[in-house]
Amino acid sequence: MNFCSNCGQPVTTLTPPGDDRSRFYCESCGMVHYQNPRLVVGSIPEAEDKILLCRRAIEPCYGMWTLPAGYLENGETVAAGAKRETFEEARARVEILAPYALYNICHVNQIYLMFRARLKDDRYRAGSESLEVKLFSENDIPWDEIAFRVINATLLQFFTDRRAGRFPFYTGNISKPNPDPP
Amino acid sequence: MNFCSNCGQPVTTLTPPGDDRSRFYCESCGMVHYQNPRLVVGSIPEAEDKILLCRRAIEPCYGMWTLPAGYLENGETVAAGAKRETFEEARARVEILAPYALYNICHVNQIYLMFRARLKDDRYRAGSESLEVKLFSENDIPWDEIAFRVINATLLQFFTDRRAGRFPFYTGNISKPNPDPP
Repeated sequence: MNFCSNCGQPVTTLTPPGDDRSRFYCESCGMVHYQNPRLVVGSIPEAEDKILLCRRAIEPCYGMWTLPAGYLENGETVAAGAKRETFEEARARVEILAPYALYNICHVNQIYLMFRARLKDDRYRAGSESLEVKLFSENDIPWDEIAFRVINATLLQFFTDRRAGRFPFYTGNISKPNPDPP
Repeated sequence: MNFCSNCGQPVTTLTPPGDDRSRFYCESCGMVHYQNPRLVVGSIPEAEDKILLCRRAIEPCYGMWTLPAGYLENGETVAAGAKRETFEEARARVEILAPYALYNICHVNQIYLMFRARLKDDRYRAGSESLEVKLFSENDIPWDEIAFRVINATLLQFFTDRRAGRFPFYTGNISKPNPDPP
């Protein structure tokens, strides 16, 4: 943030009185500009024992497989957001079953909330952000080609819970990856 | 939003190509400014059969009772945020037990995530945003003086589940209230 979105003057940073962290602040109009994490919502679309994955048509991770997910929009419930993203990316109609897993991805200021969902029919196809969409059984999941660690973690947790026959609400963290050795 | 936070020029609104909703857009530098819901995290601090409530020292709802809760900060897990808010508002140290209830409050673009928590000791006192903090048993909850409908809903759900002896993860909606009759 360089300029005040209210009055257009340059912003500075300061810790407001009574606050304990640095914020963007406009000396001209006095507005404090808070910045907060964004919520990403998505689904694990199930059809019998298979899971629908999307192969990404956009960067980052072009060509890699992912679950349908994206930023929650203003005015939208988390379940409606997960349903919308599933339709946008996989043109798939799902029944949202239950919130299933929340992942904190603190180093990128994102919170992922993934829902279990059931595919309503087989009229799925690639949306504009996908190259293809495909049902995978657990044994066929392309583990080496999964786009994001949070999706990898979600799928691993899902299959573990499915074997146990129960899906308690799960919370996990995706930490900043360690650097590669020099 | 009136001005571009990147370059300081006035923003306009448009629906970007491939998008389906109107966004703030800067014709000068080309930046699209997405706006997304904010996540509020908080706790239900338990001590034996009692719940810790805070009486608000700030508007809105000055003087009304609430559970400790506030906006999730960048770089913070949802549980850490709930713990921080509980300390800030009630100077209370809690052990976060589990995520318990998520409420969509779409008309104000907020998602509330409330945790069950256990008070670690009795060294609680009013933080700067509270007039007083106090333990209430279910029968003593000041139902007519609860600050927000989402807090009312959380408390009702909590006591219902406690009577049933189980706390499944709950999702609910707080709709825009109907106008009062003329």
